[in-house]
Amino acid sequence: MRGLMQDWPLLCHKILDHAALHHGGREVVSRSVEGPIHRTTYSAIHSRARRVAKKLHANNFGIGQRGATLAWNTWRHMEVWYGLMGAGGVYHTLNPRLFPEQLAWIVNDAADRMLFVDLTFLPLVEKLRDQLKSVQRIVVLTDAAHMPDTPLDAEPYEEWLAADDDFAWCAVDENAAAGMCYTSGTTGNPKGVVYSHRSNVLHALAGNMPDMLGLASRDRLMPVVPMFHANCWALAYVAPLVGASLVMPGSKLDGASIYELLDQEQVTITAAVPTIWMMLLQHLQETGHELPHLERVVIGGAACPRSMIEIFESRYDVSVLHAWGMTEMSPIGTICTLKPELVDLMGDARLDVQEKQGHAPFTVEMRVTDDDGNELPRDGKTFGRLKVRGPAIARAYFGNEAEVLDEDGYFDTGDVAHIDAHGYMRVTDRSKDVIKSGGEWISSIELENLAMGHPGVAEAAVIGVHHMKWDERPLLIVVPKSEDAPTRETLLDYMRPQVAKWWVPDDVVFVDEIPHTATGKIQKTALREMFRDYRLPDG
Amino acid sequence: MRGLMQDWPLLCHKILDHAALHHGGREVVSRSVEGPIHRTTYSAIHSRARRVAKKLHANNFGIGQRGATLAWNTWRHMEVWYGLMGAGGVYHTLNPRLFPEQLAWIVNDAADRMLFVDLTFLPLVEKLRDQLKSVQRIVVLTDAAHMPDTPLDAEPYEEWLAADDDFAWCAVDENAAAGMCYTSGTTGNPKGVVYSHRSNVLHALAGNMPDMLGLASRDRLMPVVPMFHANCWALAYVAPLVGASLVMPGSKLDGASIYELLDQEQVTITAAVPTIWMMLLQHLQETGHELPHLERVVIGGAACPRSMIEIFESRYDVSVLHAWGMTEMSPIGTICTLKPELVDLMGDARLDVQEKQGHAPFTVEMRVTDDDGNELPRDGKTFGRLKVRGPAIARAYFGNEAEVLDEDGYFDTGDVAHIDAHGYMRVTDRSKDVIKSGGEWISSIELENLAMGHPGVAEAAVIGVHHMKWDERPLLIVVPKSEDAPTRETLLDYMRPQVAKWWVPDDVVFVDEIPHTATGKIQKTALREMFRDYRLPDG
Repeated sequence: MRGLMQDWPLLCHKILDHAALHHGGREVVSRSVEGPIHRTTYSAIHSRARRVAKKLHANNFGIGQRGATLAWNTWRHMEVWYGLMGAGGVYHTLNPRLFPEQLAWIVNDAADRMLFVDLTFLPLVEKLRDQLKSVQRIVVLTDAAHMPDTPLDAEPYEEWLAADDDFAWCAVDENAAAGMCYTSGTTGNPKGVVYSHRSNVLHALAGNMPDMLGLASRDRLMPVVPMFHANCWALAYVAPLVGASLVMPGSKLDGASIYELLDQEQVTITAAVPTIWMMLLQHLQETGHELPHLERVVIGGAACPRSMIEIFESRYDVSVLHAWGMTEMSPIGTICTLKPELVDLMGDARLDVQEKQGHAPFTVEMRVTDDDGNELPRDGKTFGRLKVRGPAIARAYFGNEAEVLDEDGYFDTGDVAHIDAHGYMRVTDRSKDVIKSGGEWISSIELENLAMGHPGVAEAAVIGVHHMKWDERPLLIVVPKSEDAPTRETLLDYMRPQVAKWWVPDDVVFVDEIPHTATGKIQKTALREMFRDYRLPDG
Repeated sequence: MRGLMQDWPLLCHKILDHAALHHGGREVVSRSVEGPIHRTTYSAIHSRARRVAKKLHANNFGIGQRGATLAWNTWRHMEVWYGLMGAGGVYHTLNPRLFPEQLAWIVNDAADRMLFVDLTFLPLVEKLRDQLKSVQRIVVLTDAAHMPDTPLDAEPYEEWLAADDDFAWCAVDENAAAGMCYTSGTTGNPKGVVYSHRSNVLHALAGNMPDMLGLASRDRLMPVVPMFHANCWALAYVAPLVGASLVMPGSKLDGASIYELLDQEQVTITAAVPTIWMMLLQHLQETGHELPHLERVVIGGAACPRSMIEIFESRYDVSVLHAWGMTEMSPIGTICTLKPELVDLMGDARLDVQEKQGHAPFTVEMRVTDDDGNELPRDGKTFGRLKVRGPAIARAYFGNEAEVLDEDGYFDTGDVAHIDAHGYMRVTDRSKDVIKSGGEWISSIELENLAMGHPGVAEAAVIGVHHMKWDERPLLIVVPKSEDAPTRETLLDYMRPQVAKWWVPDDVVFVDEIPHTATGKIQKTALREMFRDYRLPDG
């Protein structure tokens, strides 16, 4: 027996229709790449997105074809997303921070036919143009007045747009591709994650429940997280869905520029990685500025330091939503809001919860398993492989339909984590970085955080090195501060009282520099290579 | 090109899985039909719902079969809903306020195979048993100790339940039927609305955005609206989805009983029709009690009087969420929360907005058209047929797959309404009650509300009666108060300054009583029949 409800496919561009009709006058403010602050509305963006779609059709851009963007967060980038989807196409966000050769590889792998590029990245595209075989047309996200001289066959966006918005969105299946984003793996080629209309819509709805993002029409949201980072954490969908005002920071992400928008535009909620907030907090400390309008800050992309949570909440009265997710999850996996049993916690007990990455929304099933796939207890300490299942989680990568799921349909996140009885998850490591000592797991991240707590340590990394008896044992690699450099023994003595005896690193190596990836993470593959033949004292 | 996201069907019982895992200890409190307050948790309900499902399978209850409930809001009713759905079946809520012959007709039309009945309604079932041809098994929602003597072949629920919960939910398609609810039309036989798993899940997600119901895990929700009324306004899904505590009022819906639960259980949000709130407010006035815990009250099912909004907000500091919907809409159509442009309004200007039924969530498309289907302007005054489209809106009724949609796929709500530029909708009439005078429409409801404002009027109804020149003209039918009974002329003089000249009723009739339907609405069909040959003064 079937239900007798209407067939109403979940399509991303219906979100913009809703915004235009119900929140048409709500403001979208951008710091334009050209410089000045630009103001528009959902109603105008809706109209211009249809002009994008109309022109795409005039350009013979077909259903399912990919249009790449190499752009900052601005109103134009948003118009291009919705225009591409409404034309039946697929937006493909390119991360300009990748190495140029990776970018070219990705564009070719996705067979991007159009490329929408911000002025900032035009020199990069000029250099790569010969390698971008599939790209037939380049549109520069600016107007004729700001169009630079370029050897490229490129048009300014404002000239390229169709003259009018007389265009009906294409009717596509809700399971049709809507967007693409490549993961920048530390090994192998990047892999293309393909979002569907359905997954994006469901993800926006589930991710915006009041205990999750909880955006409302009265909010003024600044997504500092770039649209090219992990599907922009759903914010380009959630904001128009509820009619929240958007404040788009463009290319200026330094502390002073971010503060200026937070203050002048009376932003109530914002979202970015810890690095951004480090810069903002430093700016606030230097200037003595306050954050009277800001109510909530979403922090994800990397674990949020405990001290950052404390400063935002105690010093600036801003609630922290610590979050975890990944490109393959659209990306929201968990958000740390306090459930009623925990909401009255204060001080360290509160921070102990907030330091965790949080709990999952409905539609994200999450569990930790051992290497054999057996589910581990939700006791807040037993850690294992973190696996997830849900309608907005990848089952395969572009170009290879083979499913990457376990036999229960779960996707292995590559993270190692534990989950407590309340459902709060904490990432303790990446599974490829965890140290396997005598059949037990040691978290490299916990040891790193511990070592970083020593006043003489500038940066610390922990890797597993071969050991005859235990298979692997932890090696601590430290960049010491120029003053107060610790010795091997003072460091290990510092750590001993704080971890189980068998977790204490077997040795410490002092180095001048620790290698990092293009996106700023410690490059453990390089470290493992460097210390492949390292002999531990008793190893 | 397809998206590469996981296939994760939207199934209602996954909501309960989520609640058990993430909000397992959260309380569900009920005033049991037997009398005492009963306390349980989502975790326990989850276990017992699986015992329901397991026993249904043992009873050879098959996929897609219907199980009827004739029951108040309690934890057991909720277990039965989820157990039926999890077993692949369909819950079918029966409204005990219908006439017995209507109930029997509905049970037979739906071919209900099981019947779950509260103690309250056992005498009714005993009387009807012979007519309930399809029902093979009757389960009384009580335990052995409270099981009354009955000639029925019936079992107490607590004995009937499977001994353990070792049962895996049935895997059904998300478009499979999940629930049924009949509309009690004023003409013709009732019609069965069939919800799907997908429609219920989407409706719960979209209806709980922060500007809509906005329930959070910290809330304690009391759904006074019965589970047998219009899919319980989605509350049996939204509460477990976000982990809000539930307070179920059982069979006692009088002012004192409702107040007792609001107060003792520290309810933060509640929902019911205006009649219930009238009783509560009267009780509060008599006792001088306050509502210190209650933050929000959802009022729907009938237009909420302006004075009620004012009293809740000004006197008791409780925000009113005026809502509109219908059984065919799962049921949420609109909820009146104040958008940022309007949130600072005070006094009458604020009430002018709040008196409207509100704006639609994403997934509800709404428009007003003229009789030819042309969309009318969103100007807050031009009224027409209110039509809706969305994934949780009926396209057909049970037993007749013929679609009841217009050529654009819209369902005609039968309401007449206008929509303003902000998207706020106001119902001005039922389309069968609107008076068509010289090609223009006159709202019977507005004239009734106006007449009710006269101190000498106890109740008022307005119908259209035949007129030679204008086709129809309004006739005002009044039950006068015993003291201060107005005359025809004083009433019309009272109304004249407040409406357009051509809206003023052509005549007034005084009666002792106005006929009502089983659910308390004015029975306009009967009035039209009574005054079919009425001759207007110049008609």
